[in-house]
Amino acid sequence: MSNQSVETQFRELLKEQTAYKEAISLTHWDMRTKIPKKGVEQRSEVVGFLAEKLHQLETSDRFKELLDELNGTPTDDVMKRAVEESLETYERNRKIPNEEFKQYVMLQSKSESIWQEAREKADFSLFQPYLEKLVDYNKKFATYWGYEDNIYDALLHNYEPGVTTKTLDEVFPKLRKSLTDLVERINQSSVKPDPSVLQGHFPKQDQEAFSIEILKKMGYDFEAGRLDDTIHPFAISLNQNDVRITTRYDEEDFRMAVFGTIHEGGHALYEQNIDAKLANTPLATGTSMGIHESQSLFWENFLGRNKDFWQSHYELFKNYAPTQFEQVSLDKFYQAVNEVKPSFIRIEADELTYPLHIMIRYELEKALINSEIEVKDLPKLWNEKMVDYLGIEPPTDREGVLQDIHWAGGDFGYFPSYALGYMYAAQFKNVMEKELNIKDIIASGDFAPIRQWLTKNVHQYGKMKKPLQIIEDVTNEQLNPDYLVAYLTEKYSSIYSL
Amino acid sequence: MSNQSVETQFRELLKEQTAYKEAISLTHWDMRTKIPKKGVEQRSEVVGFLAEKLHQLETSDRFKELLDELNGTPTDDVMKRAVEESLETYERNRKIPNEEFKQYVMLQSKSESIWQEAREKADFSLFQPYLEKLVDYNKKFATYWGYEDNIYDALLHNYEPGVTTKTLDEVFPKLRKSLTDLVERINQSSVKPDPSVLQGHFPKQDQEAFSIEILKKMGYDFEAGRLDDTIHPFAISLNQNDVRITTRYDEEDFRMAVFGTIHEGGHALYEQNIDAKLANTPLATGTSMGIHESQSLFWENFLGRNKDFWQSHYELFKNYAPTQFEQVSLDKFYQAVNEVKPSFIRIEADELTYPLHIMIRYELEKALINSEIEVKDLPKLWNEKMVDYLGIEPPTDREGVLQDIHWAGGDFGYFPSYALGYMYAAQFKNVMEKELNIKDIIASGDFAPIRQWLTKNVHQYGKMKKPLQIIEDVTNEQLNPDYLVAYLTEKYSSIYSL
Repeated sequence: MSNQSVETQFRELLKEQTAYKEAISLTHWDMRTKIPKKGVEQRSEVVGFLAEKLHQLETSDRFKELLDELNGTPTDDVMKRAVEESLETYERNRKIPNEEFKQYVMLQSKSESIWQEAREKADFSLFQPYLEKLVDYNKKFATYWGYEDNIYDALLHNYEPGVTTKTLDEVFPKLRKSLTDLVERINQSSVKPDPSVLQGHFPKQDQEAFSIEILKKMGYDFEAGRLDDTIHPFAISLNQNDVRITTRYDEEDFRMAVFGTIHEGGHALYEQNIDAKLANTPLATGTSMGIHESQSLFWENFLGRNKDFWQSHYELFKNYAPTQFEQVSLDKFYQAVNEVKPSFIRIEADELTYPLHIMIRYELEKALINSEIEVKDLPKLWNEKMVDYLGIEPPTDREGVLQDIHWAGGDFGYFPSYALGYMYAAQFKNVMEKELNIKDIIASGDFAPIRQWLTKNVHQYGKMKKPLQIIEDVTNEQLNPDYLVAYLTEKYSSIYSL
Repeated sequence: MSNQSVETQFRELLKEQTAYKEAISLTHWDMRTKIPKKGVEQRSEVVGFLAEKLHQLETSDRFKELLDELNGTPTDDVMKRAVEESLETYERNRKIPNEEFKQYVMLQSKSESIWQEAREKADFSLFQPYLEKLVDYNKKFATYWGYEDNIYDALLHNYEPGVTTKTLDEVFPKLRKSLTDLVERINQSSVKPDPSVLQGHFPKQDQEAFSIEILKKMGYDFEAGRLDDTIHPFAISLNQNDVRITTRYDEEDFRMAVFGTIHEGGHALYEQNIDAKLANTPLATGTSMGIHESQSLFWENFLGRNKDFWQSHYELFKNYAPTQFEQVSLDKFYQAVNEVKPSFIRIEADELTYPLHIMIRYELEKALINSEIEVKDLPKLWNEKMVDYLGIEPPTDREGVLQDIHWAGGDFGYFPSYALGYMYAAQFKNVMEKELNIKDIIASGDFAPIRQWLTKNVHQYGKMKKPLQIIEDVTNEQLNPDYLVAYLTEKYSSIYSL
């Protein structure tokens, strides 16, 4: 077999892999946006089946044979990384016995629906036995995959390769100290933003029209994507030319949809701007959850919650918004959308307290995987940490340990990405500021230079670069929480006259 | 291997087959309703890949082994029919060499996009080379599949098993004679319906609200389906609990959406009401295109274009419609929606001239497959037949031979189903009238008894019964055009005072 023909065969397999992934993504998108109620049950079978087929392909002997033949042979950079990436996928997947994988996929699907019920009823005991099994599987998988220092590192690797418990345990306490200090000073400030000025009936179609206008200014390509309603907003890439975003409209509070759309738009820009040469390879997607979140948070916080943005876009906003905003000054508005106030629900948290929510989850899941705590004690431990970190206690588990879907889907090791992404974003911003006049760009209403900078430095590479390599290449340093702390300190000192 | 375990394994394979079909259907639905423009190209690859996987499964040695072991062994009726149906699929598929199947799937996909361009430009020459290849493939496939009298029968079998060229050549001329006689008498009538009373701006959301209300009265289950916009309306079953319909809104002419929705709703009721015990087998769908069309046309014509319906629903309609209809009497309205007037476009044709459009297509495709005419002569022959059957000549091929997508998708043998369905529908109505007071039911606004009758006699069986067996069981006779002729004669004699 000539090397050429091996590569051609390998590319064929990657195309099949890509096709399965697109079918699975479409199925997920449909289940979260369009599917009629009674269709869900059968659809779960379809997703399970396609996931199994994909898993079979990725663990097939034929896949491995081609990988072995290609490994180390001279070929272009894309193929090299594709082989490397595929080998890693192969090895990680092969370590899990087929039967266990199947059982686990079924457990995930079942657990998500049980979690939904438990959350509605605020009854953790319904979910507990499923969560126990999910934790057990994840411990087992972590052992199969292997790790150096901490078993939890094996799971972290799935979402943020290169980042370890050791790093997080250094960075998070520093960040926590800075944030809680800031929150304390804010609590003592005489400035009290008034979020009630934001309330009022704001029809869905007007919120949507404003959001679409902002998405277009960000450079989101509506010929390669679409915006739909959902309950839990997300962005999903079917392929680089079909990257969809979803949002949720609360007609009494526009913040959910407007900031949510900018956030998901940030994710989508990443996927839409990956180099076309990576198409039909496993490299044609964001390199990690953390880098992905750096893109969504960049746009949501540094643009959407930024004073320059509202200075230049408040009039546009008022064109779409109910008349009440005519009476609200820009300053009052800006203060209100940046109110800092400890809250129960992570996805509703403000910029400043958000990372504290993440740390609570990180500490709990790390302890679970290390067998230091038991699932049955989670509600109590959760509430204790809420009091400890945020000074408030959830009234029920619905506003507490049951609020997030992640654990129900078996996603342990995922949560830290949110905080990492936030720190990465601030690091990127620090470099970008040296090259671009962000203030002027935002004021101009044409955000193209920002998007182009992110594409040049981050988006285009897809999985060609690992997350920490991107950070290193762009910022010339490693993960560093100082930029985030500096940004938050400056911003909130100004808002709260600290 | 015990018989039980063979059956279990077979059921597993059928579940896989069902899963592929659902994924393919979802993909098609998305491509026709939601997909962003730039996503189409990659998606075509995904559809092609899934279709190939399904074909591999359906022609696999393993599938055949299980079928052979099960064939003739005592098992329940559903399994018996599933085995029979699967064996037929297997045998028909196996007769086509894999490589030819693959080439053909790619040709179909390519031809559809070329056809679209050719239609837009009204330039048949662009499409001609593709159509020639498609005809050649279909001739070849027909030869592989085999036939007794006429090569075209092998293709007809795909859509209406049991119906042959011989039957059609007997029935169609009779039907044509009756219809053209009626049209002639109508042309001489002094009654001239005035369709201009129907024109006026009718906002999409109001048309939609009225259509949804009628769909609900028909018994369409919105918890097991949904209604979306599209360019070429269709109904599609993902599974019995997820049967979606689509429609097109013309804000200057409500007929497209209102009658179209009732039509697609008729298809959807068939799929939603198949016996649940057929789920996850190839029997859980309509038994043939002809029987399917009998259901959509039943509702569209016998309900939607019926005087009793408008007598009891005109007020409801006026609630949604623009105020102009306040000035239009029920009689004028009813006459206008039933105007008979030869037209170029099949899907816009009235009840009476519609079957003539079908006959033109049938005669041309039969002659093509029998090598009696050549593709290059189609535009000329099409126009000649239009003059001959309908007395009008299309100004360009866009309104002529290029109007339908069917041939571009390789669907030869499909068109007759439309006329067969129409005749079947009239036969069903004749029997239903003996058991139900249709007039009273329609007047009552609760159409449940009609839907229940159709479910009991047709829907529930899915593919458990072959089309001609259903006709026989319900009507105690064979295909018979007399009922349709009688219905049309009575209805249009009354409207046109013949």
